[in-house]
Amino acid sequence: MTPEQAGAFLTVDLKKIADNWQAVQKRVGDKTQAAAVLKTDAYGLGAQKIAAALYHAGCRAFFTAYVFEAAALRQVLPEDAQIYVLHGVLPHTELDFLKYNLIPVLSTPRQITAWNHLGHKENRILPAALHVDTGMTRLGLTETDVNAVCTNVPAYLNISLVVSHLACADDAQNPKNAEQLKRFDDLCTRLRAALPDPFKESLSATDGTHLTNPQYYKDLVRPGIALYDNAVSLEAKVLQIQDAMPDQTVGYGATHTFDKNARVATLAIGYGDGYPRTLSDRGYVWLAGKKAPIIGRISMDLTTVDVTGIDLKELLNTPTAEIFGQHCPIKEIAKLAGTIDYELLTNLSKRFYRIYMD
Amino acid sequence: MTPEQAGAFLTVDLKKIADNWQAVQKRVGDKTQAAAVLKTDAYGLGAQKIAAALYHAGCRAFFTAYVFEAAALRQVLPEDAQIYVLHGVLPHTELDFLKYNLIPVLSTPRQITAWNHLGHKENRILPAALHVDTGMTRLGLTETDVNAVCTNVPAYLNISLVVSHLACADDAQNPKNAEQLKRFDDLCTRLRAALPDPFKESLSATDGTHLTNPQYYKDLVRPGIALYDNAVSLEAKVLQIQDAMPDQTVGYGATHTFDKNARVATLAIGYGDGYPRTLSDRGYVWLAGKKAPIIGRISMDLTTVDVTGIDLKELLNTPTAEIFGQHCPIKEIAKLAGTIDYELLTNLSKRFYRIYMD
Repeated sequence: MTPEQAGAFLTVDLKKIADNWQAVQKRVGDKTQAAAVLKTDAYGLGAQKIAAALYHAGCRAFFTAYVFEAAALRQVLPEDAQIYVLHGVLPHTELDFLKYNLIPVLSTPRQITAWNHLGHKENRILPAALHVDTGMTRLGLTETDVNAVCTNVPAYLNISLVVSHLACADDAQNPKNAEQLKRFDDLCTRLRAALPDPFKESLSATDGTHLTNPQYYKDLVRPGIALYDNAVSLEAKVLQIQDAMPDQTVGYGATHTFDKNARVATLAIGYGDGYPRTLSDRGYVWLAGKKAPIIGRISMDLTTVDVTGIDLKELLNTPTAEIFGQHCPIKEIAKLAGTIDYELLTNLSKRFYRIYMD
Repeated sequence: MTPEQAGAFLTVDLKKIADNWQAVQKRVGDKTQAAAVLKTDAYGLGAQKIAAALYHAGCRAFFTAYVFEAAALRQVLPEDAQIYVLHGVLPHTELDFLKYNLIPVLSTPRQITAWNHLGHKENRILPAALHVDTGMTRLGLTETDVNAVCTNVPAYLNISLVVSHLACADDAQNPKNAEQLKRFDDLCTRLRAALPDPFKESLSATDGTHLTNPQYYKDLVRPGIALYDNAVSLEAKVLQIQDAMPDQTVGYGATHTFDKNARVATLAIGYGDGYPRTLSDRGYVWLAGKKAPIIGRISMDLTTVDVTGIDLKELLNTPTAEIFGQHCPIKEIAKLAGTIDYELLTNLSKRFYRIYMD
């Protein structure tokens, strides 16, 4: 796809992402290692390019969800970068971890057994992390599972990291944070007494690094969304500008009716690009120096905005509208859409022409 | 990505898609040609594979939004297949249309001028379609634009198709349908009087083919979503099954609290895969022969469902849950998510392992 062929441009500022990562590292202090969570293709923004930029900035620990995501990262990351796979070893993927030098985050007894079994078979000690559940009830060893590990230590594993995940870290006052911290400390104490090797501890993702109590930072933090603050913008081409008359309606279901003479710009973006349909008749874009409200329903490939009152000459000289970025903050757009910036980012289309700024 | 590495499987039944297309062709009758709209990578399902299957079934007219989508289709479609590009000629893409033998659907005076200019320069008659607006106020020539074409006929274009788009065809009783039909007939009459070549007319997409009045079918219909009825299913792997106690909470924000002993299955799918976060605490999946409600918030890569009461042995023998398909109709899932099946399909992840059934 060439820029001429594309309907929209996604700009990713790699320098700003590296700065954001360094800001997290500074916030948590020297005793804590800042990793980077690049799962879901780095929230849809291009994991390989971002991994390379973060490695250059000093990051040495990376997290993905799946082994194929991790294998893609290994192509751009030297061997001194540790790559963890949060979903652990899915059945029959054990050899992929060896091939690409990856560390599974084991979250079930079955995974521990399978990975330890491979170590036995290969007669070598394999690197591993453990995921312990402290209150998400999602992935992770239960208390019973942890006790089983302690009484029956997997002989062929070097468990070098124990992770858990906070459920309510976006709310500093939530008592669940302290409960999870206590539970995590308790489970780590039990594991430390039983396991032969020392291990690092990790409890916090982005939100946890904003908790002021440094007890939450532990040895390693796993920022994800924090990496992208003010680092991403999206612009869509203006395909058509047309005048509309009173009583004329716009889009599917004719949900918008003009009450006076008006002007409409049609943009080359739609819900098929991951621009949420819930922004229909309520979102806005930035066009020719003005806010332009979305009118009518967002279609699969097209969005219509009201540009009445914007100088026509300015309009005709403005090839693209900002969908999110400086004038349309992504968190605000996500909120208008009834979701969060994470979902907005991960839904981004393959159809965008991508520009990476160093 | 191998099936073992993947978290979820998307199955696309090409035979059923071909059957669906043939059903549309039968519904509109022999006098009307059924085309196929394969924009947005065939609603996220794989445009090249679907185009090849539909060509084999007899389809000879295809629509995309962008020229790069059309170029991809040309790789699998012989030259007797007509490929239309609904966004028309974006600036500086004219030569791509020649290279891949594509037909732009021209919707602005600028596009008509640019395409006609290339014909002049190359001294040949270029194929073209016109998009006239009849009430969407989205893309398409206005009445003023149509009159300008009639008085100043572009000499180097063979306009072989005139299209428009219905705004409210999903509501057969909506008077806007008849208004748009009348407007379309009026604009076509004017064009027919002015243009040197005969042209086909096209007004209806999927919903229009369900209107019982065959006047809406015209010469060509453009089914999109109709192609996928009962042709797509999605399954996600079960990553973990765990027991939970009363007062234990699930997921981000701890939005679900158990009031009794319970059992949770964690699935390898999340909003990062395009599974809408709005299904949190309200959607369901089908697992081990039972409906299992989503509990807690959907995460980026994980979804938790309540499997209390499902036989544990059955659960442990069931590797995947149906996300949508036979037991979880996609239209119903989309409705629960506050959207439409179109958006659900187009947001589908690249992370799925895809299975195409012939």
